[in-house]
Amino acid sequence: MKIGFIGLGHMGNPMARNLAKHGHALKVYDVVPELARKLAEQGCEVATSAVDCARGVEMVVTMLPSSPHVRSVYLGEYGVLAAIAPGTPIVDCSTIDPLTAREVAMDAKAKGCPMIDAPVSGGVAGAEAATLTFMVGGDVPDFERSKAVLQCMGKNVVHCGGSGNGQVAKICNNMMLAIEMIATAEGMTLAAQLGMDPKVFASIVNTSSGRCWSSDTYNPFPGVLENVPASRDYAGGFGADLMLKDLTLVTDAAKSARQPVLLGALAQQIYQKHSVDGHGGKDFSSVILQYMKA
Amino acid sequence: MKIGFIGLGHMGNPMARNLAKHGHALKVYDVVPELARKLAEQGCEVATSAVDCARGVEMVVTMLPSSPHVRSVYLGEYGVLAAIAPGTPIVDCSTIDPLTAREVAMDAKAKGCPMIDAPVSGGVAGAEAATLTFMVGGDVPDFERSKAVLQCMGKNVVHCGGSGNGQVAKICNNMMLAIEMIATAEGMTLAAQLGMDPKVFASIVNTSSGRCWSSDTYNPFPGVLENVPASRDYAGGFGADLMLKDLTLVTDAAKSARQPVLLGALAQQIYQKHSVDGHGGKDFSSVILQYMKA
Amino acid sequence: MKIGFIGLGHMGNPMARNLAKHGHALKVYDVVPELARKLAEQGCEVATSAVDCARGVEMVVTMLPSSPHVRSVYLGEYGVLAAIAPGTPIVDCSTIDPLTAREVAMDAKAKGCPMIDAPVSGGVAGAEAATLTFMVGGDVPDFERSKAVLQCMGKNVVHCGGSGNGQVAKICNNMMLAIEMIATAEGMTLAAQLGMDPKVFASIVNTSSGRCWSSDTYNPFPGVLENVPASRDYAGGFGADLMLKDLTLVTDAAKSARQPVLLGALAQQIYQKHSVDGHGGKDFSSVILQYMKA
Amino acid sequence: MKIGFIGLGHMGNPMARNLAKHGHALKVYDVVPELARKLAEQGCEVATSAVDCARGVEMVVTMLPSSPHVRSVYLGEYGVLAAIAPGTPIVDCSTIDPLTAREVAMDAKAKGCPMIDAPVSGGVAGAEAATLTFMVGGDVPDFERSKAVLQCMGKNVVHCGGSGNGQVAKICNNMMLAIEMIATAEGMTLAAQLGMDPKVFASIVNTSSGRCWSSDTYNPFPGVLENVPASRDYAGGFGADLMLKDLTLVTDAAKSARQPVLLGALAQQIYQKHSVDGHGGKDFSSVILQYMKA
Repeated sequence: MKIGFIGLGHMGNPMARNLAKHGHALKVYDVVPELARKLAEQGCEVATSAVDCARGVEMVVTMLPSSPHVRSVYLGEYGVLAAIAPGTPIVDCSTIDPLTAREVAMDAKAKGCPMIDAPVSGGVAGAEAATLTFMVGGDVPDFERSKAVLQCMGKNVVHCGGSGNGQVAKICNNMMLAIEMIATAEGMTLAAQLGMDPKVFASIVNTSSGRCWSSDTYNPFPGVLENVPASRDYAGGFGADLMLKDLTLVTDAAKSARQPVLLGALAQQIYQKHSVDGHGGKDFSSVILQYMKA
Repeated sequence: MKIGFIGLGHMGNPMARNLAKHGHALKVYDVVPELARKLAEQGCEVATSAVDCARGVEMVVTMLPSSPHVRSVYLGEYGVLAAIAPGTPIVDCSTIDPLTAREVAMDAKAKGCPMIDAPVSGGVAGAEAATLTFMVGGDVPDFERSKAVLQCMGKNVVHCGGSGNGQVAKICNNMMLAIEMIATAEGMTLAAQLGMDPKVFASIVNTSSGRCWSSDTYNPFPGVLENVPASRDYAGGFGADLMLKDLTLVTDAAKSARQPVLLGALAQQIYQKHSVDGHGGKDFSSVILQYMKA
Repeated sequence: MKIGFIGLGHMGNPMARNLAKHGHALKVYDVVPELARKLAEQGCEVATSAVDCARGVEMVVTMLPSSPHVRSVYLGEYGVLAAIAPGTPIVDCSTIDPLTAREVAMDAKAKGCPMIDAPVSGGVAGAEAATLTFMVGGDVPDFERSKAVLQCMGKNVVHCGGSGNGQVAKICNNMMLAIEMIATAEGMTLAAQLGMDPKVFASIVNTSSGRCWSSDTYNPFPGVLENVPASRDYAGGFGADLMLKDLTLVTDAAKSARQPVLLGALAQQIYQKHSVDGHGGKDFSSVILQYMKA
Repeated sequence: MKIGFIGLGHMGNPMARNLAKHGHALKVYDVVPELARKLAEQGCEVATSAVDCARGVEMVVTMLPSSPHVRSVYLGEYGVLAAIAPGTPIVDCSTIDPLTAREVAMDAKAKGCPMIDAPVSGGVAGAEAATLTFMVGGDVPDFERSKAVLQCMGKNVVHCGGSGNGQVAKICNNMMLAIEMIATAEGMTLAAQLGMDPKVFASIVNTSSGRCWSSDTYNPFPGVLENVPASRDYAGGFGADLMLKDLTLVTDAAKSARQPVLLGALAQQIYQKHSVDGHGGKDFSSVILQYMKA
């Protein structure tokens, strides 16, 4: 299949390469020319603009950093929707707010193009190993049609319901994750401060009602688990500033939905403070440093 | 073995009956005489006071509602420690603050009586079915010696380290549980408000990084899981006011340890408001009602 | 002076009438035609569009509900800036986010039009009595030039610094106000619950270090002060949903400035819950109802 | 009058000296003998114990660090109440929880001794200059009788209602103060971050609805006011750890009263973190450092 791919950063680059590996013909574009040039070396055609990238292809895939980028790539005089052939399916893998996802998908539909939102989890490592999880919002036939393409880039492709629900699933899951990570940080540091061995405490929690992914798979206390960021000074993993970005998205979505999220809003603030303290580049489990003496 | 059992409420009554079932000879006491009388019908000897209950027995077990009760039963002129024979092992199953647990255990040790703290999880249902989990703090030999007795009342008996650590494990686990329950409530209601099917959202979270016991085993959103309190108007289960009591214990312990617990303190407040709103008698997963329109 | 006035709602209507009272010739516009018609009865010229309203006038004043409205009235093909005569001063009295205010002011400057942001406090009552306070952001000469016009609608006209700073002053003040109102609610209800007479407690706080405008001028506890919303079931005053809107603006601004506001974010959530509970139309001091038994 | 004074620390020492200056005959005691010896040099009689200090005096005054100290000085076999002559008035100036204050006052009443709680504000400087404010809980005649004595040590003596209400007024006022100080810190730092001059912002807030004692009299932003701790690196003033102690008292009192205090509990946590970060010895306005880049 001939696929137009827009957005070739840390995530988009390996995702595009995985599509090419599976035999798809790629036409690629990024506002930073060097990013496209890298892929040209691997045999991809380089487009001159986003609009150009959408011409003469059988599918468009985008991986962009935020809602305004998605709007500007798709909408307006120089947007993809101005040039794309009616009927071409569109897959947006960016993590953005659900309302923008739905608006752009409706505009795409008006041009005859079925569009799905398919944000990912798994990070750069997952993008490189083609083990990403895609959370997909859109109509079932559109989901089914894009599945084979998404499976070139990831392991799990999950249908979350209608348009925008991929985004909803992603940001609501990550809000829960952030709160649970901080809960684990508070529980682990308090138990240790009250005299318990952190490993013993973790083993009890993990067979009890307090268990969560952050305690049993990604424990933030140094030395409790091997091969997690906590055991290598919080290097690698999922950056605290990326979690902060998702928390900002989800608390904004909660405001527009008029839904209170007291712990979510406080978690957003704690990650904000963590970032201001200079830890934004570390793995998000480093938030436990907020609870430890310097 | 002849066992003195003090504290015969909703938990203590079935626990004492399970000990009797396994052939132990019980001498029982409660400040409310009818509670002891009920057990007399089952062949237990009734003591005239806490002190009396500790005389002529080979072990003392207590199940009391709070730290001041534990102090008054054990310490002072009319306390158990004033009468107990040196060498008699003591098991306190109450959930109290770790500092009090350690103080009383030290006083017991001074009288030559090894004492362990062994708070439980599993609720009234677990007490009746003898499936409780005991989290035990104390020296290893004392833990080993009491194990057979505890196994008459429960399924899991876990050693958590030195004196007081049973309490630490219990209250720190429950703090994490409370935060994760509210996190699940916030995530589920926000996803639903943003247009997602709650069952679909739960199924995605439960195979993803946001999963926790509150989402995959005890989901608070009505209709997502069967046979949980959320599917029967939050009847039964673990009362919100009992969770509030544990949150109050743990935030007090954090204060004395000078350890911040931002989400823990906010969770305590949310359960406090939930109680004031009249929901204290419902299962603790009913906290999701704070996030739903009336 | 001939003034174009756009936005004729609860605030804009009395503001425009006060300008007319002082002899200014008004050309008015609102997307809701009846709102303009009401002013036509008072001798104002009615414009056919926002663009038309900006033609042939010596100053443009706008009073709009949110940032997107301000963008759409000023920018784009049919925006005020497309038609306005270079050199015409512009005054935007809307409460919006500071970044949007600065962007629009820069676009206006590019057309040769000096623009100031001048959000108000004082509410509908202040607009009718011409006792509003204007917090003005912009260059000093532009501030000075517009002062006489603003004084037809208000009592205090305060210069807050460069472009956007009127908005900054307004929303940061209101964040402090919201937190202090909730602080007063918590302090008053707790003191009462602990057995103190609310009037006595207020009198002590108000001569002590806990005093604030919310305690000494606008006390939320019923019966403490006369002639405040708390003494008339929270009718009138500054609506809780308007406070929620300002808190949403300020917490969004904090996110973009990467500045933590822990209490501000929690205050936003408490007002969000208050709104969901059905109290959004009451005065913002009604947030004390969150702390009282039903 | 012959007065027994117990508790001769940073506060008690200057308070006792001020009583002596006004001609009262003092009998003094502290568990630390050197503290009593210092006052002996100034002509005070030194008692051999708390009980001894209460014998042969016409009034007992205490200034102690916490509730357990108050209990142990007054109650039990070696407590003041065991020895004091019936009818002797008692004044406790300690800041403790209202429930303990009421319990001890009831025990005193049972011995025929009228007791008032009279916690102070004003700090060491106020104690030395005899400018303290006393917040008094107790019956009106007992309040009136002690007034002349209290006026030797302070400027304002305020009746707050029945027994314990002095404590209620003190801790509820200080909860409001802590929240308002953090509100001011958040507002000032956000306004500065968004581009406003802090002095200009403070001047606007201080004539507007956001004003409070923390903004207009004790502003935490360096350089806004002269002669406040913020202008001397937060030296002197009211220590952050003392504020933390009062916040711990008030949030505990709220728990026992089953009253939610969401912002109060979060403020307690923020001061807890501030203390852990090593700032507990600085003035409490230094909490603004939590909001500034290192």
